[in-house]
Amino acid sequence: GTFKFTGSIQGVPEGTVVFPREPLLQVEAPIIEAQIIESALLNIINYSTLVATKAARICTAARKASVVDFGLRRAQGDGAYLGTRASMIGGVSGTSFVDAARQLRVPAVGTHAHSWVQLFPSEIDAFRAYARIFPSNCLLLVDTYNVLESGVPNAIVIAKELKAAGKDILGVRIDSGDLASLAVETYRAFKNAGFSSIKIVLSNDLDEALIESITRQVESPLGKVSRAEIKLRQETMDHITFGVGTRLITGGEQAALGGVYKLVAVDGEPRIKVSENVTKIIDPGIKDVYRFKDTRSSMLFTDVITLRGEQAPVSGEKIHVLPEPGKNIVIEPGLTGEPLLQPLIEDGVRVAGDDAVSIDTGRARCKEQLDRLDPASRRFLNPQPYLVGLSARLYRLRQDLISRHGG
Amino acid sequence: GTFKFTGSIQGVPEGTVVFPREPLLQVEAPIIEAQIIESALLNIINYSTLVATKAARICTAARKASVVDFGLRRAQGDGAYLGTRASMIGGVSGTSFVDAARQLRVPAVGTHAHSWVQLFPSEIDAFRAYARIFPSNCLLLVDTYNVLESGVPNAIVIAKELKAAGKDILGVRIDSGDLASLAVETYRAFKNAGFSSIKIVLSNDLDEALIESITRQVESPLGKVSRAEIKLRQETMDHITFGVGTRLITGGEQAALGGVYKLVAVDGEPRIKVSENVTKIIDPGIKDVYRFKDTRSSMLFTDVITLRGEQAPVSGEKIHVLPEPGKNIVIEPGLTGEPLLQPLIEDGVRVAGDDAVSIDTGRARCKEQLDRLDPASRRFLNPQPYLVGLSARLYRLRQDLISRHGG
Repeated sequence: GTFKFTGSIQGVPEGTVVFPREPLLQVEAPIIEAQIIESALLNIINYSTLVATKAARICTAARKASVVDFGLRRAQGDGAYLGTRASMIGGVSGTSFVDAARQLRVPAVGTHAHSWVQLFPSEIDAFRAYARIFPSNCLLLVDTYNVLESGVPNAIVIAKELKAAGKDILGVRIDSGDLASLAVETYRAFKNAGFSSIKIVLSNDLDEALIESITRQVESPLGKVSRAEIKLRQETMDHITFGVGTRLITGGEQAALGGVYKLVAVDGEPRIKVSENVTKIIDPGIKDVYRFKDTRSSMLFTDVITLRGEQAPVSGEKIHVLPEPGKNIVIEPGLTGEPLLQPLIEDGVRVAGDDAVSIDTGRARCKEQLDRLDPASRRFLNPQPYLVGLSARLYRLRQDLISRHGG
Repeated sequence: GTFKFTGSIQGVPEGTVVFPREPLLQVEAPIIEAQIIESALLNIINYSTLVATKAARICTAARKASVVDFGLRRAQGDGAYLGTRASMIGGVSGTSFVDAARQLRVPAVGTHAHSWVQLFPSEIDAFRAYARIFPSNCLLLVDTYNVLESGVPNAIVIAKELKAAGKDILGVRIDSGDLASLAVETYRAFKNAGFSSIKIVLSNDLDEALIESITRQVESPLGKVSRAEIKLRQETMDHITFGVGTRLITGGEQAALGGVYKLVAVDGEPRIKVSENVTKIIDPGIKDVYRFKDTRSSMLFTDVITLRGEQAPVSGEKIHVLPEPGKNIVIEPGLTGEPLLQPLIEDGVRVAGDDAVSIDTGRARCKEQLDRLDPASRRFLNPQPYLVGLSARLYRLRQDLISRHGG
């Protein structure tokens, strides 16, 4: 059968940084239409948000280094298409999933397998054959036998042969061993041989914690080191790319985001679903979300959820922060609030512009917003919660409905 | 462009229970063809095997109760199609993912949302409206307000109204609270009202550990209880269905299976890839796998990997069990060995029959093999490893190649 959606949807544009209790999408439609799209929306939004978040965490840990997606072989089936898209929005710069790269028009990156090296009588023969096929895109996997004693010296031979033919080697990939020290020694060897623009791709079951540890080991070695050594190590960081697979495309130990889709109003009347678990109570009514930034620094200050139709919060207004009962903050002077929810579909017709769903725009939006979020809220251990509050009117409505429904 | 695979593939049929170090698929093809299909094979096999395994664990924990897949909303995008198929093979008996149910021809199961109840002036009105639409398939969600004080009494009223109209209520779903005791009290109430064939669907972020705990609480309550109470509780178990979502369709904390695709021979010559990590060394050569069962009990005894062309292992033969060096077992008299790998594709043409990929056959195969696996190897805590050995010839080849390549 054919299904025609006749309702309206508001939502945050692609790449928007969001926080707990904020509506990402708000659907107004006849109940049957709203329920038919429920599972599809939850499936798409939950997984995309999970992977974009994981990608942003991984890219934060990688700092100056770029990150590429190597997850296809461990992805959850065709979910890899959606996951690759989401990881680009979260800050990843390319993927080894060639078909997704083509469909999404994002960079495809990759190298040969260990089996390519095993096929040939020697590693240098394998490298030479690969360089003949990909002279302009030659990334060599150097850990089949021994990274520093075999792989890197052989790759330098190939780099010289390519140079004689007027080409530049792209770089090397290291997929095992002590990645931080191997990266530094690999960069040192290539630099000494005159190839200081080489890329070094590191991989092997990485995630944000391992990447943070590797960047720290590269940049800040233990013990006393010379200034020249520190400089070399900083240069090394500029040449590292992290290839992240399983734990990016699946979310790792956190394989799902628990987003929900709840009824908040019927015929304009706010509704609430009470629960014994207070964090499961959804704020009632059709809402707007305002994000307040410092006018001068543009740093994010707080988000405020209001009832639609309310005036946007103004300086001096008191905002209720949950879950702490009674805690509240005041909108300071010098803050400006912008609405986060935008009309995406109105009466069944798409009204959002392309930039609401563009990968490039979404990626830039995500990066810009993360850059403006207090580093204390961005750290992995013990982050400071970013404040999300309710307007006084929404807060009162919520409390009224809870007490009326026996909460 | 068009790609034509001209090689051959052997593999274990759908639903086969497999163990570490066993080849699930063995591809013989020109290297370029073998590499082109690498990522697709790994993506499909890894995720399917992960979810089928998780489903089998969950169904083992559920014992007599059936399990249905409720995972779509938390699945990793379109991976849900493959995951739903795999969960059926692992023992799940239906899914709430309606489109996958249609495509795979498996049972679709489900109920209304909490929002359905919120839409109506009262719970009984909502139930009555639902029963009018689905008189023959009426499963009511009873935890919107209070399971035992509101949901169950109202559902019993509906059951009586349906009965007066010549229909049977299907059952109720409980999605929050103390599931084990709510299930027992719900069954007791329905039985007392004359509805002893009701289904009770339990859900709420379940996995095998929670299900094992719930079945234990239902069947073996703490303290002194009457024989009649034990009987009622056993009957309750017969009426329970577990609805499992997120942790089934994603694998939960284990979101990926680390299967690999490695080169083991070139032009018939065995190859090995050594690694500092001994568990990463892949056995060399083109292989066969034999499964030995006790002739009388049909219980699984051991699996043996051989080189292709070797005679199948016979009684009295010594088999090497890895990773323990020097540990070996002897094929006892009264055991029969059957080959696990079957030809699936030969010279580019599919030769496998439909039963190699059928969901029903695969599901039956999986169940039968699990039933024949020693319970000590099936338990969740401290399972006894099932023995997988190498033939003497394969073991010698492996050791020769490792020492030749500096392992």
